[in-house]
Parts: sequence; structure tokens; C-alpha cells
Amino acid sequence: MNKETLFELIKNKKSFLCVGLDSDINKIPKHLLDSEDPVFEFNKAIIDATLEYTVAYKPNLAFYESQGSKGILSLEKTIAYLSNFSEQVFTIADAKRGDIGNTSTQYAKTFLDCYGFDAITVAPYMGEDSVSPFLTIENKWVILLALTSNKGASDFQLIENKSNGKHLFEEVLEVSKKWGNVNNMMYVVGATKAEMLADIRKIVPEHFLLVPGVGTQGGSLQEVSKYGLNSQCGLLINSSRDIIFKSAEKDFAIIAQAEAKKLQKEMEIILSENNLI
Amino acid sequence: MNKETLFELIKNKKSFLCVGLDSDINKIPKHLLDSEDPVFEFNKAIIDATLEYTVAYKPNLAFYESQGSKGILSLEKTIAYLSNFSEQVFTIADAKRGDIGNTSTQYAKTFLDCYGFDAITVAPYMGEDSVSPFLTIENKWVILLALTSNKGASDFQLIENKSNGKHLFEEVLEVSKKWGNVNNMMYVVGATKAEMLADIRKIVPEHFLLVPGVGTQGGSLQEVSKYGLNSQCGLLINSSRDIIFKSAEKDFAIIAQAEAKKLQKEMEIILSENNLI
Repeated sequence: MNKETLFELIKNKKSFLCVGLDSDINKIPKHLLDSEDPVFEFNKAIIDATLEYTVAYKPNLAFYESQGSKGILSLEKTIAYLSNFSEQVFTIADAKRGDIGNTSTQYAKTFLDCYGFDAITVAPYMGEDSVSPFLTIENKWVILLALTSNKGASDFQLIENKSNGKHLFEEVLEVSKKWGNVNNMMYVVGATKAEMLADIRKIVPEHFLLVPGVGTQGGSLQEVSKYGLNSQCGLLINSSRDIIFKSAEKDFAIIAQAEAKKLQKEMEIILSENNLI
Repeated sequence: MNKETLFELIKNKKSFLCVGLDSDINKIPKHLLDSEDPVFEFNKAIIDATLEYTVAYKPNLAFYESQGSKGILSLEKTIAYLSNFSEQVFTIADAKRGDIGNTSTQYAKTFLDCYGFDAITVAPYMGEDSVSPFLTIENKWVILLALTSNKGASDFQLIENKSNGKHLFEEVLEVSKKWGNVNNMMYVVGATKAEMLADIRKIVPEHFLLVPGVGTQGGSLQEVSKYGLNSQCGLLINSSRDIIFKSAEKDFAIIAQAEAKKLQKEMEIILSENNLI
């Protein structure tokens, strides 16, 4: 999926919502635990309930790997199920990988070719040759960590470069945007740092940004939109726990749908106010 | 396994060799492909052949994940097999993970508790709360990326901090060493930067360093030892392709054994010259 198609999808659904499938087996409703693959059953129900309001799904690999080969089977089934709606959703493997060239090539094949995700999150620490293998597959995306939403983001991401005064995360944006283009690179920018989005937009005005941290982690949809929207929306706002675990009872999918719809309605107003729909 | 026990192991085996189980299914000997689990059969043969000369094994997750749930099964069997020799080897999940707190907690449980690896490699970009969940499990280790062996290492790791003139990788060492201690943290330092080990030893004199890049990537065992050894050895030198893929024929395990033995013999001389054995 390229940038144009993603923007079309956003306009059609009047939403820039990404639902994080952080499907922790210890948090899904208990009545699902009797089924053969509880995590897949959970994901399928969530997808069915939220598809109308959601442009992207983002399974975080940690919650699948934690169940060993069984968890990877749940992931395989989830992405296969999502492929039925490949025109209607953008899929992100939240894997935060990054390794030396030949190893990153393996990860790229795994997540983008074999599983067929549209995008994968990648960590920038090891530099260009750890990221570029992910950029060689047509119509697929790297989503590079820039400024994350957690407390520890300030440990290294805010270090200022002696030679030009830029923060490390700004340096990551400046340097890495030359490795790819607006059709194959996005950046992770935490919603808890909304005001910094104005500065980020000076460096990457046209790129899409994946924004976690709205909701549980304290970020505001209004603030993020104010500073982050561009002429093709340019934002995917992720919500995980606030949608998928809002109820742990039999009504979990109905409640998740209501939460997704609520966010979509807010997004529709924002898109309309900004003349994007 | 604590630091003392690891040093005892090194003295007993007269070796500080780590064998990287980067068991790419496309590179293992063709005659194994008929077996039920070729990657596990390959690993088992490599382990049996090299155990005498090796203090650590390090499967890189990329090569297992690339085979989906089947690959994870091969990994599960490999670590179960290695657990038969838990007093004789240190095991490292080369996963380069790192995510927000609750997600890192999942990864920590997966690799250190469930699989039972002694250590996991972790990327530092997201800071303390992305690393500390790995440090809560007794007798287990984080091996944090500091200065990697690839070309892209210079993109960000060598940036100088405006406030104190330190490189990013030095800042990572300085800041992160307070998160843990010499019994639960090591650092990845590439062998291709051997002369920089002298500076690194000023910051972390007592920590173990995991050193990839000897062999194929151009690093020298002699140089790394010269600058990196400390009073308890303090080095694990990794070799992957140069050992496990030296032959792709039926003699692969014998050849791997010869390569491991050759390195062990060099290491024995180095340990002896430095009065460590």
C-alpha cells in the first residue's frame, strides 16, 4: 500500500485510527480460554467489531512470542485473517527489530514477505545498514522509532548533538529520511510529546507518523492532531488497551467497537475541520 | 549463572568462545533437509561437536522467526537441548528487543523465564524503563547494544553529546551501568572497533563484553583481547558463520569442531599469557 492509497483509506473511513492488537492471553476474556486458539478468537472478534472504524491494525510481537510457537501460530492466523481485508486495512508488525544487514534481511523477509505485513517498526540505533534491508521490498514500509512515548525516551533520545545542537531523535529523522522516501518510511512519535510534533513536522513535513500513547499513556488526540496533521493526514493514532481490554466480559467486542467508534467520530470532526474530507 | 560462575566456566574450558547459532535454513547442509526438523538437527550436531570448546551459545532469533511457528519450535527444541548442559554453557537469545515497560516485561518473561536463556541482547534507544524489566529476573542478564560491529554503527552511536563531549555509545555505557550491575549486565562491543575497547574499559572495567565481528566481519581476536580482557576475562567472543557454515557438506560438524577448537587454542594461549588460567 502506498501513501496515496493510505490517504484514500483514511478519507473513506473518516478515521486515522490504528488498533493495537496487544493480545495478552492473561488479559483476554476468560470465556475464550476454552477455545482452541483463544488469542486468535479474540483478535478475530476485535477485528470484526472495529474494522469499520479502523484503518490499521498493529499486533505487538511480544504478546505472541510470549506463547512460543503456539503464539506465533495465533499471529499467523491473525495476519491471514487480516489479509481478507487487504484493501481496507494497513497492517503493522510492532516488532522494533534492527540488526546487522544479513540479519535485518531475514527479519524483512519474515515480516513483510512471508507474513505479508504492510509495515514493521524498526529501532534506529544500529544505523543505515540495519534499516535499509526493510526498504527493498516494494510497497512495504519501515516505521522507525524517533521519539517514543515512554519515560526512558529522555535517557538518550533527547541528547543534543555537539556538532549541530540537534537532539538525537531529530538527528534520526534528518539522517534516516534520506534512506527511504515518504512512500516507504514512517516514524514513531509518542503522543505524550504532542508539542514537539511541531518541530518534528519541520524535519519530516510529508511523512506519516505512527503515534502511540493516546489514552492510557496520557496523550491527547486533539493536541496530536493540532501539531501533527499534514495535507494527507499524515497521522496514524494507535490505541491498544483502551479499546481491546475496555471490557474483559462477554461483551468485549461490542465495547471495543463502541470505543473505536468514539475515537473515529472525534477523528471525523478533526479531518473535517482541517478540510481533509 | 552469575559472573563468578561464568569466569569459572571460562577457566575450566580455557575458552571464551561464543558460538552464534545463526542457523539459516538456506545455508545448512542439504542432506539435513529430509529430517523432520532440519534446523534443530543442525544445531544439535553443532552443539555436540563444539561443546568442549565453547562457553556460550547465541541463537539469533531472526533465523528462527523467518520460519514462522515451525522455526520457533526449532528454537524451543534447541534451548531445551542446551538445558541438558546448563552447568557447562551460558545461553544468549540474540533478540535485540526493547519496548515500553509492560511489553519489555513480556519479552523478559518469554526469553529468560519460559525459554530459560541466561541472557538476552537488548537495544538501548528507548531508555531505562525499556531495559529494566529484563533486570528483575535473578541470575539472568541483559546484554545491551553499545558499539556495534556494522557500518551503520557510525550513523548515531558516534554522535558526540553537546553537554559532555561523550559519544552516544559512551553515554549508553555510563548511564545504563547504573540500571544494573556487573552480575546482570553485559555490553555488545564490535570487534571491528578493537582500539576503542581501551576507552570502553575506562567506563566499564569490570563488565563482561560480548564481542561479535571476529572473523567474517574483520575483527581480530588478538586485538580485542589486548584491549578488552580484564581480571575475570570479561570477554565473550562470538563467531557464527565462520564456525557453523565452514562446511555445507556431511562433514559440517567435524569442520565446525575443528574451527571451534582452533579458536579455543588461541584463547587458551591468551588466557595463559594474561595469567587468567
